[in-house]
Amino acid sequence: MLVGTVTKLGITLGDPSGIGPEIVAATLAAAPPAWREQLVIYGDRGPLERGAQAMGVRLPPVTCIGDGTGEGAVFGKPDERCGAAQVGYLEAGVAAAKAGELAALITAPISKTWARRGGFPFLGHTEMLAARLGAKDVAMLFAGPRLKVALVTVHRPLAEVVEDLSTDRVRTVIELLVAALVRDFGMEEPRVGVCGLNPHAGEDGLLGDEDADIIAPAIEIPCPPAALLGPLVPDAAFRDALHGRYDALIAMYHDQGLIPVKLVDFDEAVNVTLGLPIIRTSPDHGTAYDIAGKGMVRPISMQRALSLAVEMIERRAKQH
Amino acid sequence: MLVGTVTKLGITLGDPSGIGPEIVAATLAAAPPAWREQLVIYGDRGPLERGAQAMGVRLPPVTCIGDGTGEGAVFGKPDERCGAAQVGYLEAGVAAAKAGELAALITAPISKTWARRGGFPFLGHTEMLAARLGAKDVAMLFAGPRLKVALVTVHRPLAEVVEDLSTDRVRTVIELLVAALVRDFGMEEPRVGVCGLNPHAGEDGLLGDEDADIIAPAIEIPCPPAALLGPLVPDAAFRDALHGRYDALIAMYHDQGLIPVKLVDFDEAVNVTLGLPIIRTSPDHGTAYDIAGKGMVRPISMQRALSLAVEMIERRAKQH
Repeated sequence: MLVGTVTKLGITLGDPSGIGPEIVAATLAAAPPAWREQLVIYGDRGPLERGAQAMGVRLPPVTCIGDGTGEGAVFGKPDERCGAAQVGYLEAGVAAAKAGELAALITAPISKTWARRGGFPFLGHTEMLAARLGAKDVAMLFAGPRLKVALVTVHRPLAEVVEDLSTDRVRTVIELLVAALVRDFGMEEPRVGVCGLNPHAGEDGLLGDEDADIIAPAIEIPCPPAALLGPLVPDAAFRDALHGRYDALIAMYHDQGLIPVKLVDFDEAVNVTLGLPIIRTSPDHGTAYDIAGKGMVRPISMQRALSLAVEMIERRAKQH
Repeated sequence: MLVGTVTKLGITLGDPSGIGPEIVAATLAAAPPAWREQLVIYGDRGPLERGAQAMGVRLPPVTCIGDGTGEGAVFGKPDERCGAAQVGYLEAGVAAAKAGELAALITAPISKTWARRGGFPFLGHTEMLAARLGAKDVAMLFAGPRLKVALVTVHRPLAEVVEDLSTDRVRTVIELLVAALVRDFGMEEPRVGVCGLNPHAGEDGLLGDEDADIIAPAIEIPCPPAALLGPLVPDAAFRDALHGRYDALIAMYHDQGLIPVKLVDFDEAVNVTLGLPIIRTSPDHGTAYDIAGKGMVRPISMQRALSLAVEMIERRAKQH
């Protein structure tokens, strides 16, 4: 099923005291046997086995690469060692990707706070992957069964969003998204809607100028084979996308995109990093310490992160 | 069914060249006969009759108060006279309300642009009603079958939202909303979620300070009989409200609230003005010139605006 030279998929275990071990174990247990041989888990076996136990699943045979730092992790009790462990798993996975050993990396959640205490100098996975893999421009895409939304700005206070907004950045995200829709999602002529920033997309300047001055110029240049539409009135754009008018949307800020994605694709959306030299997907939720180890987590977003990565590898292979 | 001394409901026709005449005609045609006697239409009969024709409904006998300015209106072709007409209808309705003749005012859409050309010095209905009826503090509530969301700020460029945000204003909206949930929606102990402003509600100051510094203090003071919860992570709040965790939410800015409302309650949400001395409701859409006169509009939001106003009158009457 997987073809081409490099077909291995790496899965990082994330914070071993969070729900990572449970969602990875459940995903491994549910994966088709043919996939399992392609998988490498970057994480310690102890927490993974306890995750399987918590979820009531049998862990299939799988390669685990871990240095033991997270062996003693206790669910729901993150500490310095868990911080170091989650950073170590990720560095190991990224090193393998960089060495050309992986076609895709699927990452379970880390904790920003504990990763930082574990020596992680980045805001999150995306920033770290971009830096380590030498990607100049990246963007987050949330791909759910109902909505697909890429973000122009991500982790910024609302009052500072405007500072990060530029025609160049909007254009970059348009180009990254269109490339992915065609190559990875198999769309021939995607209809891409670009949201405005302001209410009513600025209403002819009455409610802001950025829609006309910053966003519109990025849309004017064609981006074949896609059709670009916008700047769209934000409160109509997501509703219209849900009803099939657009194949994907571009949101200007975190909550503009994430509120609707989580509302209609809750638990089922996959975070895809656009612009990396490898495929990278992850679930759209965090470490969820409050329910870790209780077998309560729904592993569906992680399962979809894996299956989407497999689909992307297959689509790319067919194109070569 | 309607009790108390003042039970009349006024309906303003809105822009006679928009979809106002059609949604009002369809709403009148579908209203229970007992309600019709309580209704007064502020608008000209000509456009209303043409609206009924376009929608294929029979206009029941109804009182129409219009000065003829909008008689010549052509659907989809707004002009200066339509601008003057829509302002005139609204002023007549508000004058009746001010004179104590109306328990509720239901307003069909006006055009900000054409109303202004017709001499309207306000941003919209809400601002005009607050000024004319002497209401110090008002707030917009969108009440749909799935979500109820009140707004702290409304028509502001995104970059200026922070300027309008204050602990006092958040508190005012909390109090207006709680009063309405109890009095008008019959809730005994409403659970009110207050959204943060920033992504992840600021993530301990990493992504902004307003959540902790401005919003949190407004929530700390109890507001019985409601339970106040927040500042909530915005991209989880709406999903959780949809799943029943909150009875209503407070959004900090227009699109934070309107994107989710239009996504899950499209066509069915009603705009309610909190803080006025009378009940005021309206549909959650605009003049829709592009489809005006074609019988294509779904009148459901206007129908719900009327039935919600009737419900509110009845609930208030029972409490006296």
